[in-house]
Amino acid sequence: MENLVIHGTYFTSKNMNEVESHEDHLICIDRCGTITRTLSPTNDEYSQILNDARQTERLIELKTNQYLLPGFIDLHVHAPQWPQAGLALDLPLADWLNHYTFPLEAKFADSHYARYVYQDFVHQLLSHGTTTAMMFGTIHNDANVELARQSIMQGLRAFVGQVVMDNPEQTPEYYRNQSSTTALHATEQFIKKIFALAKKTSSTVVPVITPRFVPSRTDEALTGLSQLARQYDLPVQSHLSESDWEHGYAIKRFGIHDTAVMDHFHLLTKKSVMAHGTQLTEDDLTLLRQRETTIAHCPISNIYFGNGVLPVRKLLAHGNSIGLGSDISGGYLPSLYHNIRQAIKSSQMLTDGVDSSLPATVRGVKDSRITMANAFYLATVGGAKALQLKTGKIAPGFQADFQIVNDHQTLMKLSSADIFQRLMYQTEQQDIQSVYVAGKKVYERE
Amino acid sequence: MENLVIHGTYFTSKNMNEVESHEDHLICIDRCGTITRTLSPTNDEYSQILNDARQTERLIELKTNQYLLPGFIDLHVHAPQWPQAGLALDLPLADWLNHYTFPLEAKFADSHYARYVYQDFVHQLLSHGTTTAMMFGTIHNDANVELARQSIMQGLRAFVGQVVMDNPEQTPEYYRNQSSTTALHATEQFIKKIFALAKKTSSTVVPVITPRFVPSRTDEALTGLSQLARQYDLPVQSHLSESDWEHGYAIKRFGIHDTAVMDHFHLLTKKSVMAHGTQLTEDDLTLLRQRETTIAHCPISNIYFGNGVLPVRKLLAHGNSIGLGSDISGGYLPSLYHNIRQAIKSSQMLTDGVDSSLPATVRGVKDSRITMANAFYLATVGGAKALQLKTGKIAPGFQADFQIVNDHQTLMKLSSADIFQRLMYQTEQQDIQSVYVAGKKVYERE
Ligand SMILES: [Zn+2]
Ligand SMILES: [Zn+2]
Repeated sequence: MENLVIHGTYFTSKNMNEVESHEDHLICIDRCGTITRTLSPTNDEYSQILNDARQTERLIELKTNQYLLPGFIDLHVHAPQWPQAGLALDLPLADWLNHYTFPLEAKFADSHYARYVYQDFVHQLLSHGTTTAMMFGTIHNDANVELARQSIMQGLRAFVGQVVMDNPEQTPEYYRNQSSTTALHATEQFIKKIFALAKKTSSTVVPVITPRFVPSRTDEALTGLSQLARQYDLPVQSHLSESDWEHGYAIKRFGIHDTAVMDHFHLLTKKSVMAHGTQLTEDDLTLLRQRETTIAHCPISNIYFGNGVLPVRKLLAHGNSIGLGSDISGGYLPSLYHNIRQAIKSSQMLTDGVDSSLPATVRGVKDSRITMANAFYLATVGGAKALQLKTGKIAPGFQADFQIVNDHQTLMKLSSADIFQRLMYQTEQQDIQSVYVAGKKVYERE
Repeated sequence: MENLVIHGTYFTSKNMNEVESHEDHLICIDRCGTITRTLSPTNDEYSQILNDARQTERLIELKTNQYLLPGFIDLHVHAPQWPQAGLALDLPLADWLNHYTFPLEAKFADSHYARYVYQDFVHQLLSHGTTTAMMFGTIHNDANVELARQSIMQGLRAFVGQVVMDNPEQTPEYYRNQSSTTALHATEQFIKKIFALAKKTSSTVVPVITPRFVPSRTDEALTGLSQLARQYDLPVQSHLSESDWEHGYAIKRFGIHDTAVMDHFHLLTKKSVMAHGTQLTEDDLTLLRQRETTIAHCPISNIYFGNGVLPVRKLLAHGNSIGLGSDISGGYLPSLYHNIRQAIKSSQMLTDGVDSSLPATVRGVKDSRITMANAFYLATVGGAKALQLKTGKIAPGFQADFQIVNDHQTLMKLSSADIFQRLMYQTEQQDIQSVYVAGKKVYERE
């Protein structure tokens, strides 16, 4: 017998170019939170399973205006920056870091403050339909453990990074690792603490090797972090060619690209997630493809700090691994819906160009537009693949991570394909009715 | 004695580059819905007025997490397209018009359907903080009157246009005016009906002369519409150089620009609002400036259909009149918050350029970025000036049109300037507590 059955219409990625809609289906979930099978109304057992589940109160019945979607996977987000989301987005990267971001992150030395912020932030992620997140913490061990704990308590699948930033030239006195040795020691301690937490829960909680970015760390730190990643078989996260300034830093300082620096230290693995990449060259992208390293595309943040649009369509066509990130607080809202929309809009602007004083033929980069199906794939399957999780899809064998959303419009009868478009364009936090991770309800709208 | 007093902190445009914040003030409103004065806590009469208002139950007291903002003015929106908002945004303009938009608008021949849609749509505008809207209707007289009626009943300040589209070459058989004569007759009838409605209400309800766009109308129609605009002293609305295709149409067909066509028929007046203008040239912009005609900037819609970014900063510096529009359903949500954000983001992308394979120095159009204060000005004062309404500001002599919004974040103490930024970046429909027009509550969140 099934542990839980959902009855309703759902949307899920078929492949990077197509979305499937399944009307009036049953989704069966076992005790471990895995989807065991999905049944169409023509299936012989449909009525039996529906009635059994109803009678034993194991049925979630979607209303006619409700739809089931996979939970989203946010591949790049700075949890400690949540209090400043929406602020100071008119500043250049260096000012934004030094006047807003570093002072705020430094406050997480106080783990009471960390708990206060992270409790709210994890709730925010879930209430926006995000069921898995790969997060930067701070350099503070206790605060990062607090982030892991809050994630476990509230049911978010969490990949948590202990940030390493030990280069005195690019980090402030009040917020840096004292040395590469202490940074590495803190990271190893953190790994062990998270492993201990993970043993006591069925939730996903994974420590992540997290050099902040090329400008902020030393060679010793990267060497050590790389060893830890190998030793414990852990994912890696960092920023890569985020902007003209960051891309230029590695070239000026080391004479090679960001990507080559990371690769030199063996930090580009198939478990690595590198944020942004707006300034990556063809050679960089080829190397990332060879390493099977994922790029976390953060389209809202990239507008403010990226100096260009990541050519997502080209990358998908070439076989680069990509997912989506909200990059709080380079982005202003922890919503992958907003980032799905911006990913499409930015790709359209890349296609058309922006400067209408130029002839249309030379204004943009032809055929760069991505579809809604592409963007949805990034936010679900793309993220799941990057993290090597069996989630992001509503299909047998996958984790039952999903969101139930309300569609308030009834002014016109629509095809499933049109309903999907509208849900993606109009769903806001208020429209998300409930969120489930591994078949367990982790959020319900009040 | 004041009819209504509001106690709280408010934000209002000082000029196009600055936003004022006034903490803990009193805003006094008379029986006609006009703001009579605003008092700071240091004013001698402050306590007296506060206490009087409290005792006589004429006080609206903002909570500590609530802020008062002027209501927004949406200068360009197609009311009948609301049912398809969020759909088909991957189609080129011509397909979008012929396969989605025209069939939908044709349905408004049925005024029951019109009432059904417009009732919901007017509510949507108000619940997104919009207190004034300049709207396209359809070619149907009764449906347009219905839109005016719903606006009056719900309290939206409404500028309603009877659409004229009589060129058989660019409009479908099933949805066009039969001739320019019938189109003009219908427009004049509509004007009289709206004038009759306006007499019976204190609400703002104004008929608008509305040639759809240059490709869809004949010379006879433009001549007649121009005469009606003069005869009844009415505002005019249309689309202008919306895209490469539309801009090119006038050049190919008439050998002159869209703007020159409109000007030839004396349709560019200081009461005219022309949507989009992404492809306008310097000469076009100069002419618009001379005519004091307003451009309705619709940044979300422009991404899908505009083939370029309107250089708002340049236009503001040169003295062009500009406001903001959601352009439902070229845009996907009737929210000026979303358009404020996109206006900033698009201007940043115009500055930086989009194609990172080009050197940074030639990638974009330097110094094109607008500030939050600029965008807020467009959504409030810019729109009010265009419509020659004394609203859009919280100041003595202005109409008491405003919104009370909830700020849910309390994780960090912020300056007023930072709170303003966050409100603009994070406010969604769910965060708008109540909306007032002329001092009367027209929306309250459930
Ligand atoms: Zn980041
Ligand atoms: Zn329009």
